[in-house]
Amino acid sequence: MPLPLLEDSPIPPTIEWMGGHIRLIDQRRLPEDLVLLEVHSIEKLCELIFALAIRGAPALGAAGAMGVALASVQGRDLAEAASLLKATRPTAVNLAWGVDRALAAADPVAEAVRIAADDVAANQAIGGHGTAVVPDGARVLTHCNTGSLACVGWGTALGVIRSAHEAGRQPSVWVDETRPVLQGARLTAWELQQLGIPATLVVDSMAGSLMAAGEVDLAIVGADRIAANGDVANKIGTYSLAVLARYHDVPFYVAAPTSTIDSATPSGARIVVELRPDAEVVEIGGVRLAPEGVPAQNWAFDVTPTDLVTGYITEEGISTSVG
Amino acid sequence: MPLPLLEDSPIPPTIEWMGGHIRLIDQRRLPEDLVLLEVHSIEKLCELIFALAIRGAPALGAAGAMGVALASVQGRDLAEAASLLKATRPTAVNLAWGVDRALAAADPVAEAVRIAADDVAANQAIGGHGTAVVPDGARVLTHCNTGSLACVGWGTALGVIRSAHEAGRQPSVWVDETRPVLQGARLTAWELQQLGIPATLVVDSMAGSLMAAGEVDLAIVGADRIAANGDVANKIGTYSLAVLARYHDVPFYVAAPTSTIDSATPSGARIVVELRPDAEVVEIGGVRLAPEGVPAQNWAFDVTPTDLVTGYITEEGISTSVG
Repeated sequence: MPLPLLEDSPIPPTIEWMGGHIRLIDQRRLPEDLVLLEVHSIEKLCELIFALAIRGAPALGAAGAMGVALASVQGRDLAEAASLLKATRPTAVNLAWGVDRALAAADPVAEAVRIAADDVAANQAIGGHGTAVVPDGARVLTHCNTGSLACVGWGTALGVIRSAHEAGRQPSVWVDETRPVLQGARLTAWELQQLGIPATLVVDSMAGSLMAAGEVDLAIVGADRIAANGDVANKIGTYSLAVLARYHDVPFYVAAPTSTIDSATPSGARIVVELRPDAEVVEIGGVRLAPEGVPAQNWAFDVTPTDLVTGYITEEGISTSVG
Repeated sequence: MPLPLLEDSPIPPTIEWMGGHIRLIDQRRLPEDLVLLEVHSIEKLCELIFALAIRGAPALGAAGAMGVALASVQGRDLAEAASLLKATRPTAVNLAWGVDRALAAADPVAEAVRIAADDVAANQAIGGHGTAVVPDGARVLTHCNTGSLACVGWGTALGVIRSAHEAGRQPSVWVDETRPVLQGARLTAWELQQLGIPATLVVDSMAGSLMAAGEVDLAIVGADRIAANGDVANKIGTYSLAVLARYHDVPFYVAAPTSTIDSATPSGARIVVELRPDAEVVEIGGVRLAPEGVPAQNWAFDVTPTDLVTGYITEEGISTSVG
């Protein structure tokens, strides 16, 4: 049951309802191999969510709903399935949201399929609006992975670049490798390669020099959460990038669905930054980088104040403020 | 023949004249193992310089001079030894400088030993002056490796932190991992651990957030070359750090011997940035990070304009300008 909006995409949907089971991309295997897993049980799905085979807020929302859908077609206890699913990543708000949406629906399957389709449609609307800020031949800098793989399909910030590419704007992309987990190097570079969009990988600390050299026309990033006043929580490094963009007069856009705006959080000052394990910094793929015994400070994300944001690109259009 | 100034140091000299041969630290084995190599031939020394077992401008100056000293005690052709040594890293200005100094001296051994001792003395003078800018309990952010291992001993920017520590200022250090080659994670973290100075490793892109959170009292970096107007060429990421420091009103110091000032280069605009291999970005320790076929742009260093530098710390003192 392919999503009609993604029929011609060289990148399959991140997660898909296949009638009686779920199919998803195993993101742990990228960029080496594109492996599609067929998931026939809640237990297997939980294992994959826990192991980060699927990640990204919108993708997890769909995964939660499809998990409940799977339990429903298999005649299993839905409340039990829901709690198993939510326990895999207790801090992932979208996962719980997707589970609850499917649980509350008269037809969990239809609801799961609708959530997935709505996500792609919202992303494509973001891309359509965002194309307006991408000049012909623009050199766009982006951070982390905000593409098809972070969502059900298409992407948010990377979706804007994709839409601009399809509209003939011929963008090229500076891809921040995005330490420590390297989502830029591993996932964004792979997606752009699949899409035939010129991409060049850089270490995160080179962004300032690129801007000073006049090599960046605009920066576009995604958002994990947007506070009511417009402050943006996103992958570590986003804030440094926003300051550098301001210093060099480079436009800095945030692309995200309106569902990312959290009206219950008045400002970024109220967002508690998640501390992640040292291991992400001190080793890569099992290779130790730093001496044993030296600690790392590993903030998962940072908060960019709204005054550093040139514009917010949502499915509703482009705006200089939120709300 | 240990350098008297480093007698109590927990870190051995990077390179040392042992009478009839040379001893050096194999930096390729750090941080896992501290391996001291005994070098008895020019050919072996050339192989080690080429393979980056020893690196850092001041260290290479001493290595060049000691190579000529070794040829001299072995009764070999000095001109031939000089050209073998220079060919190992043709763009390393200090290497050629050390070779030529020893070659022109009446006693190459005495000259090589003097160059090594002078380097340590200059660094300790830099450290002594620099202590003045390190407040009690300062949280200092640094980039790359500018410690004992980059020099003959002690260090420049890291030497300031070491001197401040010995003076009882109790500094703690945020160590930028320094992608792509990770000199911060591999070498700086190791040195600080040996010295008992509290150190915490961070990804380079976290610097802005640390400053915004009020966690950085000052930043100190080294310099590969300082132009006549004070513009500073240094490891990629230094410029981004300088902009972030300015934005957050964090003092930003450059520590380097006056020999780093290149009066023949009027400004940073005339410094050509060296492009290094993609492999440094797309793989770490043989582990591939990005898809095959995606290019990287790998600028070895960047240029920080003098107006972003709070002060220059040299063996002569602290100054707000150069020259």
